[in-house]
Amino acid sequence: MDLNDRQHKIIEIVREEAPITGEQIAEKLNVTRATLRPDLTILTMSGFLEARPRVGYFYTGQTSGTILSEEIKKLKVKEFQSLPVVISGSASAYKAVCEMFVEDVGSLFVVDDKGLLAGVISRKDLLRTAIGSQDMNQVPVNVIMSRMPNIAYCKNNDSVLDVAVLLITKEIDAVPVVQAKDTGFEVIGRMTKTNITKAFVSLSSGESNKF
Amino acid sequence: MDLNDRQHKIIEIVREEAPITGEQIAEKLNVTRATLRPDLTILTMSGFLEARPRVGYFYTGQTSGTILSEEIKKLKVKEFQSLPVVISGSASAYKAVCEMFVEDVGSLFVVDDKGLLAGVISRKDLLRTAIGSQDMNQVPVNVIMSRMPNIAYCKNNDSVLDVAVLLITKEIDAVPVVQAKDTGFEVIGRMTKTNITKAFVSLSSGESNKF
Repeated sequence: MDLNDRQHKIIEIVREEAPITGEQIAEKLNVTRATLRPDLTILTMSGFLEARPRVGYFYTGQTSGTILSEEIKKLKVKEFQSLPVVISGSASAYKAVCEMFVEDVGSLFVVDDKGLLAGVISRKDLLRTAIGSQDMNQVPVNVIMSRMPNIAYCKNNDSVLDVAVLLITKEIDAVPVVQAKDTGFEVIGRMTKTNITKAFVSLSSGESNKF
Repeated sequence: MDLNDRQHKIIEIVREEAPITGEQIAEKLNVTRATLRPDLTILTMSGFLEARPRVGYFYTGQTSGTILSEEIKKLKVKEFQSLPVVISGSASAYKAVCEMFVEDVGSLFVVDDKGLLAGVISRKDLLRTAIGSQDMNQVPVNVIMSRMPNIAYCKNNDSVLDVAVLLITKEIDAVPVVQAKDTGFEVIGRMTKTNITKAFVSLSSGESNKF
């Protein structure tokens, strides 16, 4: 929300002199207590200030950013995740490339014979192999994939924000959405920078998951 | 921002019966006008309702989403763009792959001999070539690139949101940030889904460009 100049000044005053009463703030700003009432109401109700009866106003430390941040943290992976595309570790790198083009994805999740997560393979991994001297038909996916347990993943109840931070800090494009099983993880979804970009757009349109 | 139950009810009432006075709203909710004053103040100042003197309250059609959306539209490309990585159209596909690995980017912008934007080449384009029967050392970039004028681009004063929508609708990972010249576009930056993901994270932290 956009605060006006006087509201910014009030926050400044409270930040420096809390606890401070409405009367005292009014005096400093050279206006009446009545003039100030709407400003103090909006600052209190929107979370910038806290009012304690018979004591005065305190600064909560919240900013427009932290209030916005509450909205963002409400977005969950399950609202934005895509379907996962999986491949067997024994498939060839050539087959993996074809699968990527057919499914139009940038990462495949590699599963073992029980259907549990074993690795991840990206366009970058395949491009590295392709310009090497090996025959793409002879190299199996499980030789060039990133493998468990060195794989970042998320749960469908995680926030989109946590996944965004994970993708940025690990410098990867996608993580599997998993569900824990006795002996490993079942892959139930896919979260990529595309999904984060869609979440970003949906925030602005006021709907979640508009795509 | 989080509205309380009574504030939601007030919006509902005004939406159905506008214009309506504060007195009339108070009556409907069975509370005094004084009780309602802080709610009406916050709803007006945060943009949900509009108050016209001697007429009453109107519903602006804004929602938490549209208010949030104002914050998001303030994020500009210039705060989040990365440095562009360019390559000559006569370079080989093999050289383009190497360049991508050295610079750790997913797209290169192809420039002509005047340094103006001629095309874009992605990991996907190169992977397609790599599994084909051609020799990567013999295929020049300008044979496999997407070329002007069929290239999406943006200006550094555009909003990050516009670029996010562009990337989603065109199903691409990156666009060049350009500056118009007499005979074409100079490439001055790069906006990718990674930059959008960083913008998403920065929104929640209340700072722009924290990376």
